[in-house]
Amino acid sequence: MSYESELLDINTEKLLADILYFIRNYIIGLKKEGVLVGLSGGIDSCVVLKLCVEAVGKDNVLAVILPEKDSDSKNIKDALKFADSLDVRIIYKKITPFLWLLGVYNLYPPSFIIKKSLQEKFVKKEIDKISKRNKEDIFIANLEGHSDKDLNKGIAYYRIKHRIRSSILFYYSELNNYLFVGTVNKTERITGFFVKYGDSVADIMPLNSLYKTQVIKLAKFLKIDESIIEKQPSPDLIPGIKDEDMIGLPYIKLDLILFGIENNYTDNDIIKVSNASQTEIDRVKKIIEKSEYLRAWPIGL
Amino acid sequence: MSYESELLDINTEKLLADILYFIRNYIIGLKKEGVLVGLSGGIDSCVVLKLCVEAVGKDNVLAVILPEKDSDSKNIKDALKFADSLDVRIIYKKITPFLWLLGVYNLYPPSFIIKKSLQEKFVKKEIDKISKRNKEDIFIANLEGHSDKDLNKGIAYYRIKHRIRSSILFYYSELNNYLFVGTVNKTERITGFFVKYGDSVADIMPLNSLYKTQVIKLAKFLKIDESIIEKQPSPDLIPGIKDEDMIGLPYIKLDLILFGIENNYTDNDIIKVSNASQTEIDRVKKIIEKSEYLRAWPIGL
Repeated sequence: MSYESELLDINTEKLLADILYFIRNYIIGLKKEGVLVGLSGGIDSCVVLKLCVEAVGKDNVLAVILPEKDSDSKNIKDALKFADSLDVRIIYKKITPFLWLLGVYNLYPPSFIIKKSLQEKFVKKEIDKISKRNKEDIFIANLEGHSDKDLNKGIAYYRIKHRIRSSILFYYSELNNYLFVGTVNKTERITGFFVKYGDSVADIMPLNSLYKTQVIKLAKFLKIDESIIEKQPSPDLIPGIKDEDMIGLPYIKLDLILFGIENNYTDNDIIKVSNASQTEIDRVKKIIEKSEYLRAWPIGL
Repeated sequence: MSYESELLDINTEKLLADILYFIRNYIIGLKKEGVLVGLSGGIDSCVVLKLCVEAVGKDNVLAVILPEKDSDSKNIKDALKFADSLDVRIIYKKITPFLWLLGVYNLYPPSFIIKKSLQEKFVKKEIDKISKRNKEDIFIANLEGHSDKDLNKGIAYYRIKHRIRSSILFYYSELNNYLFVGTVNKTERITGFFVKYGDSVADIMPLNSLYKTQVIKLAKFLKIDESIIEKQPSPDLIPGIKDEDMIGLPYIKLDLILFGIENNYTDNDIIKVSNASQTEIDRVKKIIEKSEYLRAWPIGL
């Protein structure tokens, strides 16, 4: 069997049964009366929502959509349409006022905030400026502290959004005694490609052991709309920035590298099947190491 | 050596040196340029703030005070006075507007919200009502889901406050590239006496391995104001509710039980030194077990 097909060699039917059992089991174990999912309109949260509906029935599922000023309008539409298609209850609440209250939008000039057309250009220029000044790549710099003031401003600007979201998701889940089901997948978890205490929090994480490419396979099996599956994945936190812009690798290549590392393949083997360069493999290893502390309980003495 | 003196037999000078090294070490390791502490005016956050000042000097420390409508005015005053006495920079920001935005204060009647004098009475009545209806004690019910609607409303009402706080604390720490130093102590950690992803989040937790009674000893060594040390500890989330009301045990007794369990003493030995009953010991063991999932990365499949 080839390496790539090994990565994708998951028994989808068994996997689905395991996940449904897993969700039901925690509802019982934690004495909850339903489940809640934060829905962005991206593939991961749509898959999780669908899984929850399969696990406990649409009447026990609450989809919470929390867009803000910078959210891609296509994602908002997709989220609403998808939740509607499953006929689950929806809470739709803009978090924009919370971000204004904290002064988040004041970090950048009003032209960036107001004119959608200028945003992507502005962001690209800002990232170029920061990249030129710093030797280290931005994704790695993101995983630890950095003295570049513009980079820190950008980090503060995007991370608060997911943290406000998780606070609100916990609020509604507690009010309803619902299980808060999160959406982080294995690729994100291993690379630290999440906002610590933002999207990385929940009661349970059913995609925890699935690489992104495996989530895509599961999405197809679940007959999630093609337009959601084929949309380029994006954290939807900074206008115009896609997942692959941040990670610097296409998901299939990244997953093949991660899968190779997980299974103790030699770098040469990984290079052969993934077409990655040695530099790319070394970078991924560095990312895994540098993101270790993000996955743990706050470091204690 | 007696059991109680064993619990308090910490070498304060060595401990202090270890904590200061620990804080400095993570500032360097995570490439931060200062530290940030959320200050409530209680003993734990005051101790942590003082430790940070000792570790990195007052010019590199930011104290963030985030009160809301229900906050005890004595705590707010203590927080401001203590931060002032250490001459650190202060950010003072009321989170009340955030809670209004989300509708949190609308969960209870306006009389509860507006009249401070009625609050404590109202809360006691509400808790009595919930307690009478349920066999399990409220603290344990708090650790998992529960079908009592009034209990869930209360839980949602108090937990969101610490979650909004932690979101804001991360925001300011990222904006400044500061290390976010948390305040959870060992007693709280082991018993789940924290708000998951509320006060339980930070970059590092210097009190992580100190029981509450050991924190008090350290506070005296650090010459923290007597009035702060002697104040009855309170989460300051619900008017009138103190730590011991929620835990149902005085801290010294609780710590002696926890210390005994940690050191594999027999229940009979624990009873002898702590004056706890078998029922109390069993309850603490149940609390430890039920709170296990709160300390972990969200449960994955």
